[in-house]
Parts: sequence; C-alpha cells; structure tokens
Amino acid sequence: MTTVVRRRMGVEERRQQLIGVALDLFSRRSPDEVSIDEIAVAAGISRPLVYHYFPGKLSLYEAALKRAAEDLASRFTEPHEGPLGARLLRVMRRFFDFVEEHGPGFSALMRGGPAVTVGGAASMSAVSATNALIDSVRQVAYDQILSHLDVTDAPARLELVVRSWISLAESTALIWLDGRDIPRAELEVQLVHDFAALAAVSATHDAEMNGLLRRLLKDEPGDGPFSDLVQGLVALAS
Amino acid sequence: MTTVVRRRMGVEERRQQLIGVALDLFSRRSPDEVSIDEIAVAAGISRPLVYHYFPGKLSLYEAALKRAAEDLASRFTEPHEGPLGARLLRVMRRFFDFVEEHGPGFSALMRGGPAVTVGGAASMSAVSATNALIDSVRQVAYDQILSHLDVTDAPARLELVVRSWISLAESTALIWLDGRDIPRAELEVQLVHDFAALAAVSATHDAEMNGLLRRLLKDEPGDGPFSDLVQGLVALAS
Repeated sequence: MTTVVRRRMGVEERRQQLIGVALDLFSRRSPDEVSIDEIAVAAGISRPLVYHYFPGKLSLYEAALKRAAEDLASRFTEPHEGPLGARLLRVMRRFFDFVEEHGPGFSALMRGGPAVTVGGAASMSAVSATNALIDSVRQVAYDQILSHLDVTDAPARLELVVRSWISLAESTALIWLDGRDIPRAELEVQLVHDFAALAAVSATHDAEMNGLLRRLLKDEPGDGPFSDLVQGLVALAS
Repeated sequence: MTTVVRRRMGVEERRQQLIGVALDLFSRRSPDEVSIDEIAVAAGISRPLVYHYFPGKLSLYEAALKRAAEDLASRFTEPHEGPLGARLLRVMRRFFDFVEEHGPGFSALMRGGPAVTVGGAASMSAVSATNALIDSVRQVAYDQILSHLDVTDAPARLELVVRSWISLAESTALIWLDGRDIPRAELEVQLVHDFAALAAVSATHDAEMNGLLRRLLKDEPGDGPFSDLVQGLVALAS
C-alpha cells in the first residue's frame, strides 16, 4: 500500500504539470484522439479544474507543442569541440530520441498540420501558429549548423544544402516511424553521411562550396563518419 | 479592333473554363488573396454565375488543385528508354516548369496546408482532402521511379531513399522559389546528382542497395549526369 501525500499546487506549477501530462498523451497517440477527460484523469484532477487552467483542448495542445518545440530545439545544442561529423552524429542521436519519445504526435503534426481541431475545423490562426512553431525549430537547427560550420553569412548554395538536408532528416524520421523497418542507429549515421554527400554534390557544382567543404573536411579524423563515407564510396566505385 | 464572338458554353465546358481561370489566378498569387469577383471578371461572367457552377471558393480551389495535381503527375511520365540519369533529368526539368508556372500557389499549398479558408477557418475534411491529394502525387512520383528502376517490391532502404529524395526535391523547389538565387537548370541537375548520392550513401550501409546501385549504374553513359557526379567527386576527393 502506498500513501499519497496530496498538497495544493500553485497555479503555475499546476499549469506546468498539466502541460507535461498532456504532452505525454499527445505524444503517444494522435492528438485528436486524446480527450480532456483523459488528461484530467492522468493529472488526477477534475475536468472543470483542467478548464480552469486552460480554456480548451486547443490551448493545452498549443502549450504542449511549445514545450516539445523548446525541448527539441535544446537537443540541437552541441559543444563546439571535436570533429564535425561526430558532433552531428550526437545531435542525430538526440533527434531520434525525441522522435521516438513523441512518435505518434510528431507524425500527426508533421503530416497534417494542426492535430487538434475545434468542432471539426481548425482556425487559420491556430494553423499559422503551428506552422510558425515548426519553422522556428527548423530555424534553430539551421542556425546551429551554420555556427558549427563557422559561417555567419551563408551563400545561397550552402543555405540550400542545410535547409534541404533538414527537411531530409524530417522525412527520414517520419518514414522510420512508419514501420521502423531500419534500425534507427543506422539512420542516424546515414543522415550524417547524407549531409556530407549533399554538400559534396553542391561542391561539384560550385567553387565556393568546394572551398568550404575542403576547409570543413580537412580536420576530420580517419575514423569519423565522414571518412567512413569516403571509404565506402571508394569501395563502391571500384 | 477585335471582334469577340460570344457563344453559350455547355455546363461541363463552362466548369472546365472556370477551373482553368481559377487555377491560373491561384497559381500567380497566394490563393487566399484571390476573390470570386476576380475569378468572375477573368472568366468574363457574373459573380452569381460562378456560384451557379461552384458552391463557393473552396470547391473551386479544390477543383483547381485536382487539375494541378493531375497535371504534375502527368509530367512524371517518361519513356522507359535510354540512360536513367537522362530520364530523371528530363522529369526534373518538367517538375521545375510546373513549379515555375504555379509558384505562389505551390508555395502556399506546400507550406501551410489549405490555402483557402472559409470565414478564417479550414474544415478538417478540406485539410485532409488537400493532404491526400499531395500524398497521391508523391505516390505517383514514387511508383514512376520504382518502375524506371525495374523494382516491383522495394526493400525498406530503397523505399526510404526514393521517398526521402522526393521530399528533398520538394524542399529544393520551395527554397528555389523563395528568392530564385540559384539558376533552376543547376538545381535540376543537382537533384539528379542528389538522388545518386543518397542511393550511394545507402549502398555503403547495405549490401542489397549496393547490388541494386551497381546494376543501375552499369549502363550509364560516360557523359550522363551520374558519370558527371562521379568525376566531380573524384576531383573533389583529390
């Protein structure tokens, strides 16, 4: 037998608890399938008390989404130390951790716009807010990558490589979630290789990208993911 | 001076004309900015007559979107003749033709879900219908690529390469539209190279992909886009 010690939570503490409970439920199932009743039960409070803190499911969903976005963005932070390939691989591992923790909610959000509706309709301001939040996380990823590349003002071709690779990482994670046929550890390494491959393709088209890539790769160790890739490609070409 | 010969159109002919006029307007500006009045003026008929054929702007938008989707899907069709790289390059040219013709409408659709709302809200059935249409075009692209690769039952890693490359092509086109800083002809070739590069990365991870890639590349000519890429990468590695 356990003794539950109940105490009154402060307003902000209760709000934060509800956001955490809701995020957990929204992550494990498609958010449209999660009811306020379930959230109330999981939080151990009454349904009216949920409404006391949040006017409706949409506002609770938006708060949960905001926390998830901050959580994901925080995982992109990586010390500016050591080889680039190894840094990117550590970020990819944390990205897949996040995707695994929030699978169904992540899929619903990235595939279909707002995952929570009011009376079968989504207000365009909610749609816009959701899209803006997704774009803000993409922007954090983009800024982090540029800072690790030691580039402040990215030329158009570098911007294209980085932004289109971010979208490749998103779609790779979504396809992985849809069946999990390939071990995620393989995809984490593959995405690091994909980044190098897309940058290399761009470098074959453009002298500035060529110079950038040569600068980036010259300090990579012989046993890092970038060297693995070059060895793999050489073996493939033979 | 021109003489306009007016004649009465049949119902289906008038509907098709209205869809064409609407698609042209929805393509050139963000669809939410296009009014039924403008569509009526462009079609040379009265506003009430537009409503006679379509109950509202949303149904006209959906009909225009369906026509655009069929148009895009038709551009993926390519004879099963000649080197693969050259086939893919011709499809990329037609894809960028489409993207250029429908720029603002394509961006609005791919970036923000439904581009037309009713009273500031989007019904979830309209959102779902739009997403299903986009997915159906992606599926046509996927099926076409597999048929050119002579693969009927794609292993998981090949499916991942093809589907994630399709999303890379979409994001590359969207980034190109947002400023047009890089000549589209360069991006058309680059996307063909990206496909080969992503397949090559996957082949360094997996024996089945390695075998498939070797089979695909053995008939590529020395002056095609795939050979260009290999030469470029060899020059880069030296």
